[in-house]
Amino acid sequence: MECGLLFSAGKDSSLSAMLLEEFYTVTLVTAHFGITDDWKHARDAADALGFSFERIELSTETVDEAVEQIYDDGYPRGGIQQVHEAALEAAAMEYDIIADGTRRDDRVPTISRAIAQSLEDRHDVDYISPLSGFGRGAIDQLVEAYLMVESGPTEEIPKGDYEAELRAGMEKRWGTNAVEETFPDHEQTRVIGRK
Amino acid sequence: MECGLLFSAGKDSSLSAMLLEEFYTVTLVTAHFGITDDWKHARDAADALGFSFERIELSTETVDEAVEQIYDDGYPRGGIQQVHEAALEAAAMEYDIIADGTRRDDRVPTISRAIAQSLEDRHDVDYISPLSGFGRGAIDQLVEAYLMVESGPTEEIPKGDYEAELRAGMEKRWGTNAVEETFPDHEQTRVIGRK
Repeated sequence: MECGLLFSAGKDSSLSAMLLEEFYTVTLVTAHFGITDDWKHARDAADALGFSFERIELSTETVDEAVEQIYDDGYPRGGIQQVHEAALEAAAMEYDIIADGTRRDDRVPTISRAIAQSLEDRHDVDYISPLSGFGRGAIDQLVEAYLMVESGPTEEIPKGDYEAELRAGMEKRWGTNAVEETFPDHEQTRVIGRK
Repeated sequence: MECGLLFSAGKDSSLSAMLLEEFYTVTLVTAHFGITDDWKHARDAADALGFSFERIELSTETVDEAVEQIYDDGYPRGGIQQVHEAALEAAAMEYDIIADGTRRDDRVPTISRAIAQSLEDRHDVDYISPLSGFGRGAIDQLVEAYLMVESGPTEEIPKGDYEAELRAGMEKRWGTNAVEETFPDHEQTRVIGRK
């Protein structure tokens, strides 16, 4: 059974892939916009974890709408949610089973039971979020036991997540200040291999 | 990492165990009330799947309250939910990581994020429901691919779930008619091994 799992090189999507690999042939799928080459960091992490990799380019409209929402909101949550849903829609065109790394305590992106059901019905696919039933403590323990990670501020830890390209897309339209005002500084974690 | 997973010999708790076994040392735990010996069906299924097994006896009050609620409601949902929560509380006294087979589309038992968080905070444990992120279609496919099951009406497929003992407890107090009026006929599935 083939499964396309949305992948950012972060610990959640990496653990999700490892939870599914006994049961599915997992391909790690990174959605990008063609603005930067940050998807290559995801490809490298997929190699290091031993999974096959695919990138999907989302439409220019998707990124335009997302950065506009982020600029209007003043924070990135809604725009990231939009992009994640668009990425799932795109993956559902290529795979019969799609998955992602959303977890129980996530605030964004979050896929409600209603969104999951709608995705499954419209595309005739199954959607799996293997970490939905794991809390923060359980995930931290699994990361500690099974993954090698690098951590640091966003600029020093390039990943293949949506943030890098959304920041670049925003900078292009409204300059560096707009990015700094809307994207809070936070610690990033990038997976570099298995323990 | 040791994990105690509530187990009924059904397909959901069996799949949950198989999803976790690469990462945890899983013990299958069956809660019972000492009314019947149906927990032995769960022990046999655990053997067939290759997991270690433990039974936990819940208090007489737990079963009394559950059958009273079922009798009052006229259907078993609320009583089964009560028993499942009591079983999780009991497991949380013995294991640092507890788990169950609840899934995305379950109506009962269902463990909300709030109940999960409360359980974790009060007992200082992690609670995992590995099938929370799987819909019906994905689970059916996994069962088909990885489990050997027997199906049939409740009387012909004895399991180690709460239903057998709740029915017996109810019959003792209010007779066979009460059981037939409150427990709807439904198809049971018992796991008998791996494919």
